[in-house]
Amino acid sequence: MKYKVDVNCDMGESFGAYKMGQDEQILDYITSANIACGFHAGDPSTMRRTVKLAMEKDVAIGAHPGLQDLVGFGRRNMAISPQEAYDLVVYQIGALAAFVQAEGGNLQHVKPHGALFNMAVSSDSLSEAIAEAVYQVNPELILFGLSGSRMIEAGRKIGLRTANEVFSDRTYQKDGALTPRTEPQALITDPEEAIGRVIRMVKDQKITTLQNTELAITADTLCIHGDGVTALEFAQNIHQSLQNAGIELRKVHEIV
Amino acid sequence: MKYKVDVNCDMGESFGAYKMGQDEQILDYITSANIACGFHAGDPSTMRRTVKLAMEKDVAIGAHPGLQDLVGFGRRNMAISPQEAYDLVVYQIGALAAFVQAEGGNLQHVKPHGALFNMAVSSDSLSEAIAEAVYQVNPELILFGLSGSRMIEAGRKIGLRTANEVFSDRTYQKDGALTPRTEPQALITDPEEAIGRVIRMVKDQKITTLQNTELAITADTLCIHGDGVTALEFAQNIHQSLQNAGIELRKVHEIV
Amino acid sequence: MKYKVDVNCDMGESFGAYKMGQDEQILDYITSANIACGFHAGDPSTMRRTVKLAMEKDVAIGAHPGLQDLVGFGRRNMAISPQEAYDLVVYQIGALAAFVQAEGGNLQHVKPHGALFNMAVSSDSLSEAIAEAVYQVNPELILFGLSGSRMIEAGRKIGLRTANEVFSDRTYQKDGALTPRTEPQALITDPEEAIGRVIRMVKDQKITTLQNTELAITADTLCIHGDGVTALEFAQNIHQSLQNAGIELRKVHEIV
Amino acid sequence: MKYKVDVNCDMGESFGAYKMGQDEQILDYITSANIACGFHAGDPSTMRRTVKLAMEKDVAIGAHPGLQDLVGFGRRNMAISPQEAYDLVVYQIGALAAFVQAEGGNLQHVKPHGALFNMAVSSDSLSEAIAEAVYQVNPELILFGLSGSRMIEAGRKIGLRTANEVFSDRTYQKDGALTPRTEPQALITDPEEAIGRVIRMVKDQKITTLQNTELAITADTLCIHGDGVTALEFAQNIHQSLQNAGIELRKVHEIV
Repeated sequence: MKYKVDVNCDMGESFGAYKMGQDEQILDYITSANIACGFHAGDPSTMRRTVKLAMEKDVAIGAHPGLQDLVGFGRRNMAISPQEAYDLVVYQIGALAAFVQAEGGNLQHVKPHGALFNMAVSSDSLSEAIAEAVYQVNPELILFGLSGSRMIEAGRKIGLRTANEVFSDRTYQKDGALTPRTEPQALITDPEEAIGRVIRMVKDQKITTLQNTELAITADTLCIHGDGVTALEFAQNIHQSLQNAGIELRKVHEIV
Repeated sequence: MKYKVDVNCDMGESFGAYKMGQDEQILDYITSANIACGFHAGDPSTMRRTVKLAMEKDVAIGAHPGLQDLVGFGRRNMAISPQEAYDLVVYQIGALAAFVQAEGGNLQHVKPHGALFNMAVSSDSLSEAIAEAVYQVNPELILFGLSGSRMIEAGRKIGLRTANEVFSDRTYQKDGALTPRTEPQALITDPEEAIGRVIRMVKDQKITTLQNTELAITADTLCIHGDGVTALEFAQNIHQSLQNAGIELRKVHEIV
Repeated sequence: MKYKVDVNCDMGESFGAYKMGQDEQILDYITSANIACGFHAGDPSTMRRTVKLAMEKDVAIGAHPGLQDLVGFGRRNMAISPQEAYDLVVYQIGALAAFVQAEGGNLQHVKPHGALFNMAVSSDSLSEAIAEAVYQVNPELILFGLSGSRMIEAGRKIGLRTANEVFSDRTYQKDGALTPRTEPQALITDPEEAIGRVIRMVKDQKITTLQNTELAITADTLCIHGDGVTALEFAQNIHQSLQNAGIELRKVHEIV
Repeated sequence: MKYKVDVNCDMGESFGAYKMGQDEQILDYITSANIACGFHAGDPSTMRRTVKLAMEKDVAIGAHPGLQDLVGFGRRNMAISPQEAYDLVVYQIGALAAFVQAEGGNLQHVKPHGALFNMAVSSDSLSEAIAEAVYQVNPELILFGLSGSRMIEAGRKIGLRTANEVFSDRTYQKDGALTPRTEPQALITDPEEAIGRVIRMVKDQKITTLQNTELAITADTLCIHGDGVTALEFAQNIHQSLQNAGIELRKVHEIV
């Protein structure tokens, strides 16, 4: 096949007695799992179980480091310094890597979570700090970032393989930024529209922005969501639709 | 020289704005540093700085995992399962190992902290869980345990190198247990007496118990304390006294 | 009506993005809500919402303080001192009381959670510390404790009103203790049997123990559970069955 | 005497085994203590001890709520919503109020900490949320805010007594804002200059800004710092100097 894309999803977001997501079911339809590392979500036992589950289902494993804001699920911007970003990324990659090592697996990638991901999109120094953290822990790791963003650039500059990530359920601005969730047309709620856009991003490397311009975009990996009532259904749907469209689902390390 | 011993000390116990210990000074007199991993003490930035400092001073680095009880400094027993002990040890070793890796160093050992260390002394299942966690993350790591305890036994059984640890400032029971701190004669407060006892443990492999019996004891590594007003003075004193007595201070991986 | 009992349930156990329980529905069938205070579960926003909801449904409000062990949901025993127990109970009552005050309500009672509740059952000093904490914050508060336990005794001694609590889904030992959950016959899983036992505890003040003896028991308040798939159904069932048996459901401050 | 000012200082910032500040000594020289409430610093036991100490020294007690960022000491801005600000202020006031109640004292005021204080300076909605939280818990409490700021305005509007706070060691901008710490002339390091400026603020209600303009300023309460090597010396110095200048030190509730 000619076209390929990785499908990633956040996993291991349960915490203690609190359950979140339908990891076991969703894992059947994705190729890469971003596993929470205990700062914004997840805990050591959840991390072990999720790593094991991903390996059983032959899904590639990534670390999903976030801000130390459990009650806010890592979604609230915090004024951290680049050094603090570096430190918390090193810490969390290491913690997850140890479970992967203990289970005999391989760590494939790192995808920053939530506010950490978003803050890096508009900050060279945060993007560089995150990229450096990944590189220093293991230069073989693949860094995920918003397609065409500062983080991708920072990863490349330091010598990491990078994965340009696209979102099926979000609209784009003409400069390539995601439309902020606070704005009315930020989300694409119709599954068929969402899937159509993804197929076009993968095959034609193009997306129509909210300003009705055409944007060139690279889609190495597609982010889908594991929570919400329709998450599983959408995962199945996109899994099937991509294959029907002649796009192969592959772990990102076989793509970039 | 004929006699050797490792001298270890807990390090990196500062947390955010809170400073603890005199790490930089103490590092001049020890051979192995047990670095807190963020559960009972320490934080990512402190871990990075402490790893770096230890490497600059040519002190071997160990992970010092503890219970998730920051306000109690990991000193309060908690009814955790062996599986939970395994998980929190894997997590914390990994987090520290990442900083060691990022700085280009080597992780030498693992020493459980406080209540986790103490609970393991009287629990086969906790000792085994901890030993297995260490082994699964990296079978080359050296496991520290109370000299002659279940943890040493558990480490040996699974195939780890182990380091029998002795305490200069604590009295021993005839069965080899430390006298609990709640009892009157638990502590040895006279530095000269403490040092004399250490020298005898290293050279003669013997200690006189509180019951006035002679106990055979192996002293691979000696624990000293980094906090308290006399900590630095004692570190200097024992460093010098051991050498004067013909005992070489060596990193534990050159001993066991 | 002649017979009365309070029905209480733990509430407000959600945390940030993590949802737990079906508080809104369960509140229709209970008379007292034990609201988590942010240590073992709950967070400030959840506390505010739950207080408001309980007031709207005319359910009496209690503080439900627990151990500072979020990842363990406050269910793991910890070796805390009586002073530490006192301090964490004062803190958590105050935090909840502020939301009750802000919403214009009244705080009725305090029920310790999980391991804190269980440890107090077998410790005079913990029971006394908890009772003193409640009394010092507000001597009008009602202290919940296992029926006939040390906590009830400690509450009475200091001058608090107390509520003897019984459990519908647990078996009792001949000394009045609950059969530990680790033992095979600890739980009563048949709803009809559970309800029959509750009715007998309320009307006859008796229960048949696992050793087949008759135990005199006071049932001021009955604990039901808000999580689990059958929780809502059971809440409805017992609500109706008690009334059918001529037992009035009343807030505990109208009973003790 | 004609002139009066309150002198306040942050207190109770120790956490578990971590000690911070010289509370006991500083309390001899201040009239109001802002006691940390366990989110950015402090813990239940520290809060109890600090409340007790303040009462013994006849120093008025205030709650000092902060962001839930222990490792950052509440100093890093976080994108919290006004509702979240309201909730965390209610929670923390309540927690501290319970210790004050248990010790038989009175809660005098509320002073937000660090980033929460700073963010409110430039946000009407945060200022209003904080003022509302204070008012709802207890309308008799006095709200501290930067002299002439939005928080003072928000407090007045809702019906609270407010205390205009000035800083002895900070320079002011012509619009009344503090010069950000990141700028070169933000701090006044000479104690005599600092004291001279305070005396002028209290007596003449004027300060010279960094732009060399005269700014009208109200000085109800003066903030001094409890950490740092010269903190105690400065506290003694300003205590004496104010009295020498004919300014009486009074608890803020006797002033506003």
